[in-house]
Amino acid sequence: MFSDAELSDDKFLCGKLHLWQPLKGYRAATDPVLLASACPAEAGQSVLDLGCGAGAAALCLGWRVPGLRLAGLELQPDYADLARRNATRNGIALDVAEGDLRNMPRDLRRDFDHVICNPPYYPPGGTPSPVASRALAMQVEAVPLGDWLAVAARRLRPGGWLTMIAGADALPDLLSALGTLGSASVLPLAPREGRAARRVILRARKGGRTPFRLLAPFVIHHGASHEGDRESYTPAANEILRMGGDLSAQFG
Amino acid sequence: MFSDAELSDDKFLCGKLHLWQPLKGYRAATDPVLLASACPAEAGQSVLDLGCGAGAAALCLGWRVPGLRLAGLELQPDYADLARRNATRNGIALDVAEGDLRNMPRDLRRDFDHVICNPPYYPPGGTPSPVASRALAMQVEAVPLGDWLAVAARRLRPGGWLTMIAGADALPDLLSALGTLGSASVLPLAPREGRAARRVILRARKGGRTPFRLLAPFVIHHGASHEGDRESYTPAANEILRMGGDLSAQFG
Repeated sequence: MFSDAELSDDKFLCGKLHLWQPLKGYRAATDPVLLASACPAEAGQSVLDLGCGAGAAALCLGWRVPGLRLAGLELQPDYADLARRNATRNGIALDVAEGDLRNMPRDLRRDFDHVICNPPYYPPGGTPSPVASRALAMQVEAVPLGDWLAVAARRLRPGGWLTMIAGADALPDLLSALGTLGSASVLPLAPREGRAARRVILRARKGGRTPFRLLAPFVIHHGASHEGDRESYTPAANEILRMGGDLSAQFG
Repeated sequence: MFSDAELSDDKFLCGKLHLWQPLKGYRAATDPVLLASACPAEAGQSVLDLGCGAGAAALCLGWRVPGLRLAGLELQPDYADLARRNATRNGIALDVAEGDLRNMPRDLRRDFDHVICNPPYYPPGGTPSPVASRALAMQVEAVPLGDWLAVAARRLRPGGWLTMIAGADALPDLLSALGTLGSASVLPLAPREGRAARRVILRARKGGRTPFRLLAPFVIHHGASHEGDRESYTPAANEILRMGGDLSAQFG
């Protein structure tokens, strides 16, 4: 388990959530917030966060949509422990199981209405971190993206939705591994207007049959470059990242 | 062969090219022009247009880049004949072979620096045309997109480039079939700002190893809707579709 000295106390959604995160290791930033905002879950539905880390995505979603039944799977016990502490601290029910997605814990071998997923990621050309847990969380080779998709699909009820965030460079891997997932849409996340997408959000439905859609990009920052230290979110990004808004409308 | 009464005389690139096209059947519009503009061919290089139809893409490319060695493969003899007539008429050398891409004519069993390709396409939910040649040109089921990619890859020299235009709904099929093609980029073609892409241009390099890139969309029309009969191309689209410009810069 992490000691207090190893943790920072971070605000998400402008302080609507407070999360402990390890000072060293995988630290959530905007990805889990964007992921949570894109999941079309409604009150009363069940959601599984595959690889929930310290709980940021599941808890952002739980804050936006009250009345969900939230579950998380996390490989690393110290992160699973943090996710439980973060859930309690923010008054959001989140049932965290420790385990490997390739050997799903018995508790989670059931159908979910939604699966959300922010798989570990090396940027192209990136190098592994010397910190063990970070290396593990970032170890993209350990479980291929196609396996994440296959496990997610297995855990969805027919008609259930997968929502996943990943590097734009992973798009061929993602779209090659849809399997039983159909009605897929990709929302490109562009750092600025006119730039190549750095990340993408994939949404797909188990057994869905509508054609694939490549949506207009969601642009995070306005202007051509950072203006000093000042953040410069677009109004739409501000609505999602600070106000906890719903990105579902982007998916039409 | 088509009789003159079955043909229309169409201007491409604002009259820089004049092409005979069948009044009924597959009629090229903006797709071959966009395709030609995105191919990074340079003088002296060889280019194969897989499924060249009446020659629009190959001839637009030949107009923009003098000194290419252009070849086309076309399944339907009447279209192959038209492509030859159109090449002669516009003073651009284009060597057209008749044949099926799954049984490549002996003449074309060699390496090319570039392959360009605008495969036949049904829009999602579209129905086959009652006109036989149109139905054939539009018959997407006849040859799966993955086969087009595999044949294109086989015809490229190592390091050679494929440039392909296709429906955005086909992206999962395209990205699942890259095979030996790497360094892939997708340029979404959006009818208007903020809209989902309707078409995409895929560029990929045989044996390429740089990460996949999802580029910022290229927007065709400005404004929120058509203003009466008036075309309303964006300045960038005007440069490509009327002036015969080079779309390569979009690929960075």
